[in-house]
Amino acid sequence: MSDKDRQAEPARSRHRAGFGQRPPVGAMPGTLMRDPDAQQTQVRIVCYGPDRIEEIPFQGPQSLPQLLDSWAVTWIAVSGLRDVELIAELGNVLGLHELALEDAVSSQQRPKVENYDDYTFVVTQAPRWNPVHDGDAADLEHVSEQIAIFFSRAFVLTVKAGEGGRFDAIRERLYKQRGRVRKAGPGHLVYAMLDIVIDEYFPVVEHLGEKLEALEADIMRNPDREVVVRIQQMRRSLLAMRRAIWPQREVVYALAREGMPHVGRKTRIYLRDCADHLTQLIEMTEMYRELTTGLLDIYLSSASARTNEVMRVLTIIATIFIPLGTVAGIYGMNFDPQVSPWNMPELSWYYGYPYAIGLMATMAGAMLFYFWRKGWLGGRDPARLLQDD
Amino acid sequence: MSDKDRQAEPARSRHRAGFGQRPPVGAMPGTLMRDPDAQQTQVRIVCYGPDRIEEIPFQGPQSLPQLLDSWAVTWIAVSGLRDVELIAELGNVLGLHELALEDAVSSQQRPKVENYDDYTFVVTQAPRWNPVHDGDAADLEHVSEQIAIFFSRAFVLTVKAGEGGRFDAIRERLYKQRGRVRKAGPGHLVYAMLDIVIDEYFPVVEHLGEKLEALEADIMRNPDREVVVRIQQMRRSLLAMRRAIWPQREVVYALAREGMPHVGRKTRIYLRDCADHLTQLIEMTEMYRELTTGLLDIYLSSASARTNEVMRVLTIIATIFIPLGTVAGIYGMNFDPQVSPWNMPELSWYYGYPYAIGLMATMAGAMLFYFWRKGWLGGRDPARLLQDD
Amino acid sequence: MSDKDRQAEPARSRHRAGFGQRPPVGAMPGTLMRDPDAQQTQVRIVCYGPDRIEEIPFQGPQSLPQLLDSWAVTWIAVSGLRDVELIAELGNVLGLHELALEDAVSSQQRPKVENYDDYTFVVTQAPRWNPVHDGDAADLEHVSEQIAIFFSRAFVLTVKAGEGGRFDAIRERLYKQRGRVRKAGPGHLVYAMLDIVIDEYFPVVEHLGEKLEALEADIMRNPDREVVVRIQQMRRSLLAMRRAIWPQREVVYALAREGMPHVGRKTRIYLRDCADHLTQLIEMTEMYRELTTGLLDIYLSSASARTNEVMRVLTIIATIFIPLGTVAGIYGMNFDPQVSPWNMPELSWYYGYPYAIGLMATMAGAMLFYFWRKGWLGGRDPARLLQDD
Amino acid sequence: MSDKDRQAEPARSRHRAGFGQRPPVGAMPGTLMRDPDAQQTQVRIVCYGPDRIEEIPFQGPQSLPQLLDSWAVTWIAVSGLRDVELIAELGNVLGLHELALEDAVSSQQRPKVENYDDYTFVVTQAPRWNPVHDGDAADLEHVSEQIAIFFSRAFVLTVKAGEGGRFDAIRERLYKQRGRVRKAGPGHLVYAMLDIVIDEYFPVVEHLGEKLEALEADIMRNPDREVVVRIQQMRRSLLAMRRAIWPQREVVYALAREGMPHVGRKTRIYLRDCADHLTQLIEMTEMYRELTTGLLDIYLSSASARTNEVMRVLTIIATIFIPLGTVAGIYGMNFDPQVSPWNMPELSWYYGYPYAIGLMATMAGAMLFYFWRKGWLGGRDPARLLQDD
Amino acid sequence: MSDKDRQAEPARSRHRAGFGQRPPVGAMPGTLMRDPDAQQTQVRIVCYGPDRIEEIPFQGPQSLPQLLDSWAVTWIAVSGLRDVELIAELGNVLGLHELALEDAVSSQQRPKVENYDDYTFVVTQAPRWNPVHDGDAADLEHVSEQIAIFFSRAFVLTVKAGEGGRFDAIRERLYKQRGRVRKAGPGHLVYAMLDIVIDEYFPVVEHLGEKLEALEADIMRNPDREVVVRIQQMRRSLLAMRRAIWPQREVVYALAREGMPHVGRKTRIYLRDCADHLTQLIEMTEMYRELTTGLLDIYLSSASARTNEVMRVLTIIATIFIPLGTVAGIYGMNFDPQVSPWNMPELSWYYGYPYAIGLMATMAGAMLFYFWRKGWLGGRDPARLLQDD
Ligand SMILES: [Mg+2]
Ligand SMILES: [Mg+2]
Ligand SMILES: [Mg+2]
Ligand SMILES: [Mg+2]
Ligand SMILES: [Mg+2]
Ligand SMILES: [Mg+2]
Ligand SMILES: [Mg+2]
Ligand SMILES: [Mg+2]
Ligand SMILES: [Mg+2]
Ligand SMILES: [Mg+2]
Ligand SMILES: [Mg+2]
Ligand SMILES: [Mg+2]
Ligand SMILES: [Mg+2]
Ligand SMILES: [Mg+2]
Ligand SMILES: [Mg+2]
Ligand SMILES: [Mg+2]
Ligand SMILES: [Mg+2]
Ligand SMILES: [Mg+2]
Ligand SMILES: [Mg+2]
Ligand SMILES: [Mg+2]
Ligand SMILES: [Mg+2]
Ligand SMILES: [Mg+2]
Ligand SMILES: [Mg+2]
Ligand SMILES: [Mg+2]
Ligand SMILES: [Mg+2]
Ligand SMILES: [Mg+2]
Ligand SMILES: [Mg+2]
Ligand SMILES: [Mg+2]
Ligand SMILES: [Mg+2]
Ligand SMILES: [Mg+2]
Ligand SMILES: [Mg+2]
Repeated sequence: MSDKDRQAEPARSRHRAGFGQRPPVGAMPGTLMRDPDAQQTQVRIVCYGPDRIEEIPFQGPQSLPQLLDSWAVTWIAVSGLRDVELIAELGNVLGLHELALEDAVSSQQRPKVENYDDYTFVVTQAPRWNPVHDGDAADLEHVSEQIAIFFSRAFVLTVKAGEGGRFDAIRERLYKQRGRVRKAGPGHLVYAMLDIVIDEYFPVVEHLGEKLEALEADIMRNPDREVVVRIQQMRRSLLAMRRAIWPQREVVYALAREGMPHVGRKTRIYLRDCADHLTQLIEMTEMYRELTTGLLDIYLSSASARTNEVMRVLTIIATIFIPLGTVAGIYGMNFDPQVSPWNMPELSWYYGYPYAIGLMATMAGAMLFYFWRKGWLGGRDPARLLQDD
Repeated sequence: MSDKDRQAEPARSRHRAGFGQRPPVGAMPGTLMRDPDAQQTQVRIVCYGPDRIEEIPFQGPQSLPQLLDSWAVTWIAVSGLRDVELIAELGNVLGLHELALEDAVSSQQRPKVENYDDYTFVVTQAPRWNPVHDGDAADLEHVSEQIAIFFSRAFVLTVKAGEGGRFDAIRERLYKQRGRVRKAGPGHLVYAMLDIVIDEYFPVVEHLGEKLEALEADIMRNPDREVVVRIQQMRRSLLAMRRAIWPQREVVYALAREGMPHVGRKTRIYLRDCADHLTQLIEMTEMYRELTTGLLDIYLSSASARTNEVMRVLTIIATIFIPLGTVAGIYGMNFDPQVSPWNMPELSWYYGYPYAIGLMATMAGAMLFYFWRKGWLGGRDPARLLQDD
Repeated sequence: MSDKDRQAEPARSRHRAGFGQRPPVGAMPGTLMRDPDAQQTQVRIVCYGPDRIEEIPFQGPQSLPQLLDSWAVTWIAVSGLRDVELIAELGNVLGLHELALEDAVSSQQRPKVENYDDYTFVVTQAPRWNPVHDGDAADLEHVSEQIAIFFSRAFVLTVKAGEGGRFDAIRERLYKQRGRVRKAGPGHLVYAMLDIVIDEYFPVVEHLGEKLEALEADIMRNPDREVVVRIQQMRRSLLAMRRAIWPQREVVYALAREGMPHVGRKTRIYLRDCADHLTQLIEMTEMYRELTTGLLDIYLSSASARTNEVMRVLTIIATIFIPLGTVAGIYGMNFDPQVSPWNMPELSWYYGYPYAIGLMATMAGAMLFYFWRKGWLGGRDPARLLQDD
Repeated sequence: MSDKDRQAEPARSRHRAGFGQRPPVGAMPGTLMRDPDAQQTQVRIVCYGPDRIEEIPFQGPQSLPQLLDSWAVTWIAVSGLRDVELIAELGNVLGLHELALEDAVSSQQRPKVENYDDYTFVVTQAPRWNPVHDGDAADLEHVSEQIAIFFSRAFVLTVKAGEGGRFDAIRERLYKQRGRVRKAGPGHLVYAMLDIVIDEYFPVVEHLGEKLEALEADIMRNPDREVVVRIQQMRRSLLAMRRAIWPQREVVYALAREGMPHVGRKTRIYLRDCADHLTQLIEMTEMYRELTTGLLDIYLSSASARTNEVMRVLTIIATIFIPLGTVAGIYGMNFDPQVSPWNMPELSWYYGYPYAIGLMATMAGAMLFYFWRKGWLGGRDPARLLQDD
Repeated sequence: MSDKDRQAEPARSRHRAGFGQRPPVGAMPGTLMRDPDAQQTQVRIVCYGPDRIEEIPFQGPQSLPQLLDSWAVTWIAVSGLRDVELIAELGNVLGLHELALEDAVSSQQRPKVENYDDYTFVVTQAPRWNPVHDGDAADLEHVSEQIAIFFSRAFVLTVKAGEGGRFDAIRERLYKQRGRVRKAGPGHLVYAMLDIVIDEYFPVVEHLGEKLEALEADIMRNPDREVVVRIQQMRRSLLAMRRAIWPQREVVYALAREGMPHVGRKTRIYLRDCADHLTQLIEMTEMYRELTTGLLDIYLSSASARTNEVMRVLTIIATIFIPLGTVAGIYGMNFDPQVSPWNMPELSWYYGYPYAIGLMATMAGAMLFYFWRKGWLGGRDPARLLQDD
């Protein structure tokens, strides 16, 4: 089983995943945990300034100070968390705090911004699709990938667990000198990353919305019990989404606040645009949450309509035929008509049998008329509304 | 169909509509998306001051600076979003930020106010009725039309997707020199627009209230399962309404705040009046939301009352006739009375048959008395309350 | 139909009532709408100071400035909104803002305080009882009557739709020189009015509490479906009450705040007492709201207990008699005992019939014992608890 | 019975009690209402300072100023509200505001703190047990007793409706010179009173917790309908408890705030301890509220499990015996076997009767096997879990 | 029964436990209650500074001042609360407030921070596992152990009820001079303790998450009534967890605030990391709370699906066989065919019996076809989804 396959595996316990890898109780603060399943660590360096840009091969942490001095912005992109010693050394060279590094190599840190003396530390959670095989239908499940970003006047260090070119569009804009990003310093580079992360949430939330719509349609059409499980899954997904997006907005607002170091005045306008998009995401998520609550009501009323219909059929058949059976039973009694004229004289009537059948037909007709007046015979059948759709 | 076309397709599902047209992930900030279904772009210019007013034919963006210099207020009304290049050039000439322009040509931006150096940017969402054909009944559905407003000391630029004279009443007041609007500068013109947008919400919310009232009556009269769907639609509508109105109030409060540029002290009083109306709208919406929750309770209790009635009819008929059938069955047994005097002597009684019928009548009477005491025989019939209304 | 009768009519649409009379969309701000059903406008003027007091006949708006100069406090009480031109002229003479006047002649403005340059504008909603005929029982329905108050250093102008001496007790105190009101200026007169309005809410809220208590008792005694409608009406009433009272408290707090013009330091203590009473009203209303939620639970469990009892009766009767009927049916089969000794030899037993009856009795007894052990035979009958109360 | 008597009658319903005695609408502010059932007014005076302490017989309000001059602290304890004139005169001598006095002699004023020029006014609500006879079981019901406290640099005046030595422990500490209370001034005496009031709430809240536990056990064991009423009573009690405790905490925080006159810096630490205990009380109350919500779920699922069991018994018996009865009915038909060999040849088979009985047994066995596989025959009987507890 | 056994006993009343041991009403503030079941008091002293560290045998409270003078930090660890006089004397020697000491020896004080003149008082609640025997399955129940911490410039005093080396990892780090703790003063030692307490919550919350997952699976597989009790227990556990964790975060934020005495600037960064972990714990707890609410919905829909299935089986069997029985009953009537050709001529038909059987088969087939079309015959059986999982 390759590393890549392992990556795509669904989490075995949803709950552990909620907290990620943790150092043992009582461990020294700043302990960097190595996940045995972590991917190979790769470091990719791009240096740029208003006038020039260059991808520099990584030659160890000690080569960094010289780059920082020579270039306006040095972007050090670390992907894969296997080599924690390398990451620790990078942190040491760049003067990063042990607790921030611990957060950076953990995988489920809550999104946040922290200002240290010389640099700012940002954690964000980006969406990623994992294939899942639930029953027989293949589906995509949204999971979070943590991205830790350290940035100062001179560098941007990104640390994430997976490979994959999430930020390739930024590199392209840097090389093609499109937009403000080449001229605008580390803060604007961080903005560009957050912008991509946030834009990536839209299809995820839209996907949830489509699932919700499909679920609603299924509940109307075929309200079997399994939909309750899907409603609970929807609720779980929306809670996870909320937990991912809400703190993200606080992060963006914090970065856009006046006085945040290494973030220029013009970049703040761009960050406010991100915050706007996060508010849109939050509003949609909250709306889906409220609609999800309504789904259960629809299901329960569907189920109850079904029970009602079953009851109605039983009642109609039973209340028509049980009395008929009783009449038949009466004329099946063996009282001896020869002993007395009082004993079942009907049995000897010329039209005795037609009379009995007629009595039954009258009783059945009266019941049917009663049921028709009650609206139980289908015309106003509420359950039929469901089936004809 | 190219990838690009597919991307630009109009939203088919409700969920896409929630977000509107979006540039692709990683696109440059400030990318103006062209919607192929967008209406033809039209620009209409009205210039006015305390003493004179004139409608000026649009002669390209480059003609604007001269107008701005010559007139107290220049109102540039753009409707139709097809010609994004024209809009971009207008933005360029007037010095507008690329992100604000992106918001202006998107169709589902959240209402907001943003202050830029020389101008203020406002987004509002106005209500519009779309005809819908749900089942066989024609109905009107409320949708949002976005209106983006840029205003500075000298101009007001409005950008909206649809044509139609939403603001004709303002033009009329301008021409007829009625009210403060001719003398009061761009801020008061913006107020007049927002006032119309907010006033247009009242019939929409009233329409929802009437639908809610009709729904409540239907639930009482004829509680079929379809009402649950209507309750869910009502919930959806009220959520959409809330999402449209709440941020609008923040917009109006922000504009009415002291220190907001290009908004005069006297105009602030007028804006507070708008805020008042928005509060009324919000209160009605919230009240409808709470009443909607109660509707489901009414429906469920109606449905349960129905089931109960069906049960009662079944119970009455079955518990009366099943014992009778058993008695009849007993006297239909074939034990041989000739073998022993113990074997079914009733069959040979002189009044055997009347005795059997009397036994049955007594049993039925006892059951009926019991049901009457329980109140199951109709006098206190809870379901009848429902039908006689 | 006289004006007075019309007044007592129930509102035809609850929803319109929520917004009151509204100028058309796009109307000039400050448009005063005349309600064709409005009562005749009457103006009553009382002037007073520490030493003297006089009721002055109204001689047109132009006579007011002189009164304001001559007296410490001039109280101009306008009731009836038919003559909007007169009200507009009054506003003009007293220098009132067109938007405040528009609020004053509307009938459903939210309670609020607004400070203008020379005067303060207060809107309050007072309770009023309307008779309603719901089914056959006469009841009282609470509705709101709006009272608009303008006050400055020298005058108090009150505007309300209906006649009736809500504030007669204040006039009496003024004449009899009881309490602070004669010496204390316009602010204290406004306090005295608000105090009466708030005190009038107590019997209304108490009436709701009594209805809630009666409703709870009815649900326990006779849980028919109609109670759900009463619960919904209770919810609606409590929402309306909340909507009336909550903003009222903000009004009182605003008036009691330091720096509010035309309100003396000593009057502030009195206003805080009003706020206290509003808090009591709010707490009771909120408590009733929570208890109302609980009522539905009681109803649903009552209804479910009823269904359960019906089921139990059906089950007991059916499960006892159906097996007996089967036994009887078996001995009613026509297998020929003469063909073989295996064919229904019981029919020829000496004690065949007693044996069959004994078999049935044994089966019925076993069932009854089973039901008795289950507690289904009444001793622990949960539904009986309900009926014996 | 005169109008005045009727007005002053003690509250019969729970709702009136919620508001207590109220002056009529429009009454002068500061009107002291006399409750005809009020207890005899008694005044008890204890004067003390660091060095000496003495209980002084009350010789009328006019004797107080001299005591206030001679002693460090004069504690005037008024119990019983019958003699409102005496209380008014006390207020007059001590310079107390008419509105504060009105609150003091009302019985259900919300807990609050108000600072007047020379003194501070505190209202608290202490718990008291009233015996109630609900059905046949005697129980204790918690009610509130209001205690009003005025304190300044020199005196503490307490006003309460009932007699009884709630604060005897404080007197004892004063006399025995234990703790800070003798040396610490009026503020600390007020603290000591509040401390006792708060400590008295703990057994009350614990009692509610025990009732909740008993209720939960009863719901599990014997879920009859009456428990819903008990749940509603529990909800009502917890709401009353919350209404009593929450504002109490605001009172204590207000007294502990820096700058509160007549409260020493050291006493503030003691007040914070009180606030801590109130927070504990609030947390327990809130927790009980949430658990109470869960109780209804347990009840409903118990009731539904019962219905389900009844259904299951009915289904098993009916679906086994109805088909058997049909088979028996078939062989009870009177088709004439002598007319044709096709007519009921079974009746003449040698083993006809055993064959019919065997057919029935097979059918019954098949049904039983089906029910056993469904788990309906008791092994996994969910309802049994309930009964074996 | 040894002390240790007693400790492991489950609390007899959950509610008392909520408040812990309390002094009687009216007791002097600062009364130290001795719990007769309290463990033997032990005092352990570790003194350290940047250069040296030593464990000093405890020689009575009077020996402490000298240690405080000689060492940078003196850590006095008191475990076991039996000897309250010793603890009081310790407090006296160190100058601690009587109310803080009272909190320290109580066992259920809410987490809090209080600043006194020379020292800071912190209360925290650490998780501990107690074995419980619920039914036959052994389980672990989480309970709280209170830890009180006093710290100043020179000492840290910890007071807790139980023995056990919760903080042994800190001692080890102190001895091995690992991390900042040896150099960083009392504040950092307090941080290290809180860090361990918080880390210990993670497995507890994870355990709750796993129980929730198991509960959800059980509800899907075998929704018997007992799960409702487990849901209520889960709700209770999560409420207790919330009550333990929420105030803990306020404690940590308070300690991390600028200006908190005896906490260094660098330690604050470490405390913020603790706050981060508490936020994670809170988010998980809140998410579990929301999911717990969903579980009841799943249970109720499972139960309702079961009832529905039972109903369906009853309806199918009864509605098929009751009409057949009626037909059989008709041909079992004893009308005399010899009296008239109208009397049951079928009985003498050559194919009379096959005709009757055919009639029955046709009726049964029609019913089956109807049920098949309704989807009641299993193919779309909603209940089966449940059983095949
Ligand atoms: Mg929102
Ligand atoms: Mg929310
Ligand atoms: Mg929301
Ligand atoms: Mg929200
Ligand atoms: Mg909401
Ligand atoms: Mg809701
Ligand atoms: Mg509101
Ligand atoms: Mg709301
Ligand atoms: Mg809201
Ligand atoms: Mg609201
Ligand atoms: Mg609510
Ligand atoms: Mg709800
Ligand atoms: Mg409240
Ligand atoms: Mg509340
Ligand atoms: Mg509320
Ligand atoms: Mg509230
Ligand atoms: Mg509240
Ligand atoms: Mg509710
Ligand atoms: Mg709380
Ligand atoms: Mg709460
Ligand atoms: Mg709360
Ligand atoms: Mg809470
Ligand atoms: Mg909560
Ligand atoms: Mg609640
Ligand atoms: Mg949260
Ligand atoms: Mg929460
Ligand atoms: Mg939450
Ligand atoms: Mg939360
Ligand atoms: Mg929520
Ligand atoms: Mg929810
Ligand atoms: Mg809840």
